Amino acid sequence: MKPSIPKGTRDFSPAEMARRNYIFNTIRDVFALYGYNPIETPAMENLSTLMGKYGEEGDKLLFKILNSGDFLRGADKGLIEAGDTNRLAAQLCEKGLRYDLTVPFARYVVQHRNELQLPFKRYQIQPVWRADRPQKGRYREFYQCDADVVGSDSLLNEVELLQIVDEVFRRLKIRIILKLNNRKVLAGFAELIGAPDKIIDITVAIDKLDKIGLENVNAELLERGLSQQQVETLQPILAISGTLEERLDALASLLATSEVGLKGVEELREVTAGVMALGLDAELDLDVSLARGLNYYTGTIIEVKARDVQIGSITGGGRYDNLTGVFGMPGLSGVGISFGADRIYDVLNALDLYPAEARTATQVMFVNFGAAEAAASMAMMKQMRSMGVSCEIYPDAAKMKKQMAYANAVAVPYVAMVGESEMAQGKMALKNMASGEQQLLFPAEAASVISKSLFKN
Amino acid sequence: MKPSIPKGTRDFSPAEMARRNYIFNTIRDVFALYGYNPIETPAMENLSTLMGKYGEEGDKLLFKILNSGDFLRGADKGLIEAGDTNRLAAQLCEKGLRYDLTVPFARYVVQHRNELQLPFKRYQIQPVWRADRPQKGRYREFYQCDADVVGSDSLLNEVELLQIVDEVFRRLKIRIILKLNNRKVLAGFAELIGAPDKIIDITVAIDKLDKIGLENVNAELLERGLSQQQVETLQPILAISGTLEERLDALASLLATSEVGLKGVEELREVTAGVMALGLDAELDLDVSLARGLNYYTGTIIEVKARDVQIGSITGGGRYDNLTGVFGMPGLSGVGISFGADRIYDVLNALDLYPAEARTATQVMFVNFGAAEAAASMAMMKQMRSMGVSCEIYPDAAKMKKQMAYANAVAVPYVAMVGESEMAQGKMALKNMASGEQQLLFPAEAASVISKSLFKN
Repeated sequence: MKPSIPKGTRDFSPAEMARRNYIFNTIRDVFALYGYNPIETPAMENLSTLMGKYGEEGDKLLFKILNSGDFLRGADKGLIEAGDTNRLAAQLCEKGLRYDLTVPFARYVVQHRNELQLPFKRYQIQPVWRADRPQKGRYREFYQCDADVVGSDSLLNEVELLQIVDEVFRRLKIRIILKLNNRKVLAGFAELIGAPDKIIDITVAIDKLDKIGLENVNAELLERGLSQQQVETLQPILAISGTLEERLDALASLLATSEVGLKGVEELREVTAGVMALGLDAELDLDVSLARGLNYYTGTIIEVKARDVQIGSITGGGRYDNLTGVFGMPGLSGVGISFGADRIYDVLNALDLYPAEARTATQVMFVNFGAAEAAASMAMMKQMRSMGVSCEIYPDAAKMKKQMAYANAVAVPYVAMVGESEMAQGKMALKNMASGEQQLLFPAEAASVISKSLFKN
Repeated sequence: MKPSIPKGTRDFSPAEMARRNYIFNTIRDVFALYGYNPIETPAMENLSTLMGKYGEEGDKLLFKILNSGDFLRGADKGLIEAGDTNRLAAQLCEKGLRYDLTVPFARYVVQHRNELQLPFKRYQIQPVWRADRPQKGRYREFYQCDADVVGSDSLLNEVELLQIVDEVFRRLKIRIILKLNNRKVLAGFAELIGAPDKIIDITVAIDKLDKIGLENVNAELLERGLSQQQVETLQPILAISGTLEERLDALASLLATSEVGLKGVEELREVTAGVMALGLDAELDLDVSLARGLNYYTGTIIEVKARDVQIGSITGGGRYDNLTGVFGMPGLSGVGISFGADRIYDVLNALDLYPAEARTATQVMFVNFGAAEAAASMAMMKQMRSMGVSCEIYPDAAKMKKQMAYANAVAVPYVAMVGESEMAQGKMALKNMASGEQQLLFPAEAASVISKSLFKN
């Protein structure tokens, strides 16, 4: 019986943890620099909080937790006989695992409304669970890294979130394209062709422009019930080109008759001008076909793609005007961003961009030559640890070959040897595992050599 | 409909997160200094991994996850009619939430045996879930912070784990008593009175010595089937006193006829001598009545109590010789320690020991005087952030009173004002919120003032 874990879940080894923590710490550091504070919510939420928030399909993808004790009490026997597992599940289970961080955040804001000072800026880095069919790059347990501000409709928030995105990827050394759109511009398109009720159909179709090309998008628009005339009216919009400035101007003149469309263009102008005045490493792109989370976003829409790796969106976000309405607190505007840690991990792996610090902890391993030498080593280690150097001693006085095999396996950059003669001098022979160079040093000297060399990388 | 969370679970606000992260980061830093590397395992494990590992009571306290889709398929209708929810649950659910970090760690070691280099030193800081009845200080979701080394029976590991405990609490400024015992000493007691099969009864009874006193312990020993003679034989052991050294000597002479008992004393000598040679802040105590996790530990037993707060054990651990046997990998010895984050949190609160850095993120809030001033402020903020200062701007040009109420609520130590005249000079008026002092400064000067003042605390 070889033990295993549920499909779609993962163990993270020390080497993987070091890389993941490098990503999380980078994101966390930048969030903090912008005044976002962490919160955490429970893994389990009441199903009444989760159900109905992610569509019918989403309800099925919730992991539900069987009630403790006599879970059949109160279950409708008729449902059991009918095999109506959907409705039965709601009777057997009161709790479910969180599906994302957005709904728990909305629930948090409403539940703690009296303790919160608005605007409320929070970030949250926690796992979420989805009973999706597992496949390459899609897991049933994965982390989300979200930052949101609620209670302010100022576009300065958008500017700061874009700065955060830019700074995170600058630190990670991933070159990105930062795509922007605005839901109001999409609403403008629908107004322009006299079909405001068709906004979803239009955007779902033109969202595929990159993937399927203009001809297929037009075919889909016709399929979705637009007239030939309406499709033609949209053509100049889909053909917009030029610099960001030129495209905004073209958009404004095409949407001249749509108040909401012009408002969207105006917001895009303000946000892009704001970030460009502050300077941006990322390539900024206006993408009128961008429509992620359309049922949800009401203003700015943000999507980030890696420039050097073919992979889907690695970060996304936008403004929503009614996050908490479903919990009885209407009219609270917010804007947020969500980093896709798993895809960022894949991008860093593909580009081999991990720095030296994203590796396992130990900086120096002491060889164990026996009880007396081990005791002397441990006294030296105590001193070096107090200087911030991570040390370990091989716990048994095993054969040198075995100890060195361990040192290589855990990839320690330094090995220290304290034999009889070193012990007599209160020193160690410190060996740099990369260069093979060896020095006879006091503990404080060794600590300083190690700290300096590891900071250089 | 006011939303809520499942009973026994908690939301953590930014202020609580700052305090919790202070604890976790302290523990993590010390683990790393001793060469322990992090791993993470999934929240969900197969129920086959979890069931039967925590006793019958424990099986009931596992949160079980309803199978996705048609969960009734394969369920025995007879069990439904009989209302046999225990056996039915195993048919409706394949997965459960982890109950502790020890069993997942054992599963990890066996599953990844071919990738691991022994000895394997890992730490793990993750939440666990138990369907316990919630009460004060007992939650259904809580964090465990475990460090273990497997694949080495060297007592140097014990010495290092005790150093880790000492260093963590030294950094947290919590004065502790570090209690030690050894399962082999307990086995020696049972041998001494000619009742080796009574070891559990003896230890369960004498474990209560602190709480119920000698007289009641003796009564319980009789109740549990020991003879008057056997109870009398135990009396000198329970009365051992003096210095650590004296008590070890007394123990050795009382256990002179028990080979396993003497081995236990020898191990205690080696461990205590090892840590004392290196110097210890904690008060070290030999406690022959200490018997936590007896079904589990086979050598050293460790327990930590706070000296200045009446609360249960705040950390515990010990050596086990067969962690992975249940998963088909026998004979792997290990030793570990587990920090009780929730109780440590309570102790720090009780003693008010949180340092200044354990607070919310923002170091300076810029007042928003309008679009032009905000743009100038944001340029200054960009510069200050690049120097590591956490900044935010109030997103709307709201009334001063409202903006200052926000600054007070999030407890920012500094507020910066960039009005027309400051803007003209490229400076800000930086106000220290504690002292009320105000200075006119360039951004780089302000960053330096803020960094220096916050490091002083």
